[in-house]
Amino acid sequence: MTAAPAALPRSASIDWPDKAAELLAGLREGRTRVHAITNAAAQVLTANLLLAIGGAPSLTTAFAARADALLVNLGTLDHDRRASIPWGIAAAKAHGKPWVLDPVFVDASPARLELARLCLAGTPCVLRCNASEFAALAAREASPASVAEHAAELRTTIALTGPVDWVSDGERFVAIHNGHPLMARVTAMGCAVTALVAAFAAIERDGFTAAASALVVAGVAAEIAGEAAAGPGSFAPAFLDALHGLDAAQIGNRARIA
Amino acid sequence: MTAAPAALPRSASIDWPDKAAELLAGLREGRTRVHAITNAAAQVLTANLLLAIGGAPSLTTAFAARADALLVNLGTLDHDRRASIPWGIAAAKAHGKPWVLDPVFVDASPARLELARLCLAGTPCVLRCNASEFAALAAREASPASVAEHAAELRTTIALTGPVDWVSDGERFVAIHNGHPLMARVTAMGCAVTALVAAFAAIERDGFTAAASALVVAGVAAEIAGEAAAGPGSFAPAFLDALHGLDAAQIGNRARIA
Amino acid sequence: MTAAPAALPRSASIDWPDKAAELLAGLREGRTRVHAITNAAAQVLTANLLLAIGGAPSLTTAFAARADALLVNLGTLDHDRRASIPWGIAAAKAHGKPWVLDPVFVDASPARLELARLCLAGTPCVLRCNASEFAALAAREASPASVAEHAAELRTTIALTGPVDWVSDGERFVAIHNGHPLMARVTAMGCAVTALVAAFAAIERDGFTAAASALVVAGVAAEIAGEAAAGPGSFAPAFLDALHGLDAAQIGNRARIA
Repeated sequence: MTAAPAALPRSASIDWPDKAAELLAGLREGRTRVHAITNAAAQVLTANLLLAIGGAPSLTTAFAARADALLVNLGTLDHDRRASIPWGIAAAKAHGKPWVLDPVFVDASPARLELARLCLAGTPCVLRCNASEFAALAAREASPASVAEHAAELRTTIALTGPVDWVSDGERFVAIHNGHPLMARVTAMGCAVTALVAAFAAIERDGFTAAASALVVAGVAAEIAGEAAAGPGSFAPAFLDALHGLDAAQIGNRARIA
Repeated sequence: MTAAPAALPRSASIDWPDKAAELLAGLREGRTRVHAITNAAAQVLTANLLLAIGGAPSLTTAFAARADALLVNLGTLDHDRRASIPWGIAAAKAHGKPWVLDPVFVDASPARLELARLCLAGTPCVLRCNASEFAALAAREASPASVAEHAAELRTTIALTGPVDWVSDGERFVAIHNGHPLMARVTAMGCAVTALVAAFAAIERDGFTAAASALVVAGVAAEIAGEAAAGPGSFAPAFLDALHGLDAAQIGNRARIA
Repeated sequence: MTAAPAALPRSASIDWPDKAAELLAGLREGRTRVHAITNAAAQVLTANLLLAIGGAPSLTTAFAARADALLVNLGTLDHDRRASIPWGIAAAKAHGKPWVLDPVFVDASPARLELARLCLAGTPCVLRCNASEFAALAAREASPASVAEHAAELRTTIALTGPVDWVSDGERFVAIHNGHPLMARVTAMGCAVTALVAAFAAIERDGFTAAASALVVAGVAAEIAGEAAAGPGSFAPAFLDALHGLDAAQIGNRARIA
């Protein structure tokens, strides 16, 4: 399941733990600011994740000119958010800032699927989704080959998260084996991790490298948190604590990416 | 105060700890999905409670056809929620799914009281409220007798929560002595527990049995959390941890329901 | 930097730890209710702070007549909140209740700055802001002298929070050295603390005394939490636990205000 198709060269030339630690250091030094148009249930965790890792959040609907990247999450589509999404994407592009799409629940609603397709026309730096959302968007089952294929079609990087994360830009492919099952028992955890992808994309404009590095960082922090947690309630604060204290040695010792 | 009126037969025929454990197992096995139209401050805790107990939340305004039950909470009545409530109730009924009403703050606003009465015309499976909300809705003080009486009038089950919880469908009555004082020091705790009532109602269509079992489960988890917590801040994650790990032995040892 | 200008008499006549403990006792005894029109990301933490300290929150958009004070936070300016703010201020004034302004992000948007100025025409009891927001509102850099000067111009108390907090009503000035760096790594912490200022203003109508006492209480609780926390994730619940358990001895031992 997790093997890359033979036709896809693996990204063996990147030292992932070093790259992830380097981007994390850059994020902290520059206090990278992510503007997040995200769903109501994800706002607090998203903001706290960005603060914990050393960055800064903006949560207003109008794109902040001082933001370094934009996150668009389709989870809550009320009037204000629906109106702000296309302007936010336009503003990010006008300011030369990367933007990342999280097409929440496109598998549950044709209207969301249509909206996600309109958003994709604006070519996000990274599309972060789960297997069900991918299947709805790509109209095919998720596999390393289909993820790479659809990334090539969309001319973007797809980061498909799950028990194993797959990242591909159509030419390169990588699988990340970090993470913890309790991530799936905390609401908006995937949404919040997408904000970390956006923060890394602000520093590293190669979306493939940014997304894979961000997922390594989140997965390693989740493993550290999982060892300290007694359940999903204590996992969430432990995850933020782990992100706050994360260092290159922890990443180097725990990263499982190939 | 907590004695049932003499005219009401007690529900002595149900082995409550066994029933609560059985419904909990069913919820986890089926990953029961609750669609929650709830107030802004309750969304995250409600979703995390459902995930911690082994179920799944939906928080969008449009009723998800895949949902197993609907929760309607009147705490936030903005334009989108106000429009979605009657359609949500209609959709739940059309799909044969139970729905549960949480009439937040009907004691504080005539407009909410009127809206709650309109909702009640759609006959929820369970009405979960506190003593003040009951008094406003029923136009009488809360007592075991008045709760049973009003449940009969509404042809529903009323679950009135407080230091002791009362549940009646007009014919049966039960009092639950589980719980912890810190529940009242965490915002939206009652709202989140109503989501558990909805989840149990999806498995057990007898609203009386579902509501009483859900309140036993929540109360036992709160007691376990209270023993681990240093205050209301650590109580909330400990409550989610306790729900996540809850087993039949803990319910059997701690349930106080009669 | 933190010295008061020579022209400003220090408020040496107040025994701050005693006053803070006295107001805290009053808040708990009266279960002071704060009606909070606040941003989406701040609602849960604000409500939980008020519950932890022994008060009560209202979060609906319509001002509750039973509220003891009003908090207006400009962080989220959607249609409902924008409409409710002037009516909320009018209702607070009509009921003789104090109100407190938190002009979030006025430094990031001319529209917010204009709205904050309109709000200030309603003379809040206290204006709580950070240095950037102060600079935007006052059109001058923050310093003890400029804070006192602008407080006199506005005929209100300004509470400027940061590594050191400054409070002035134009005649008196005080600096508070309590607090913890992790406060800045939890979203909406400043917003939530403003709710505590509003709660104290309900008991102590001298805004200067109320604001300084509230910031001492919050700062002492943050220090206690910081000693127990492993990072920003565990800091937030530890802060609520500390507020819940806070007593006069802790305030007396730790308060650093002059």
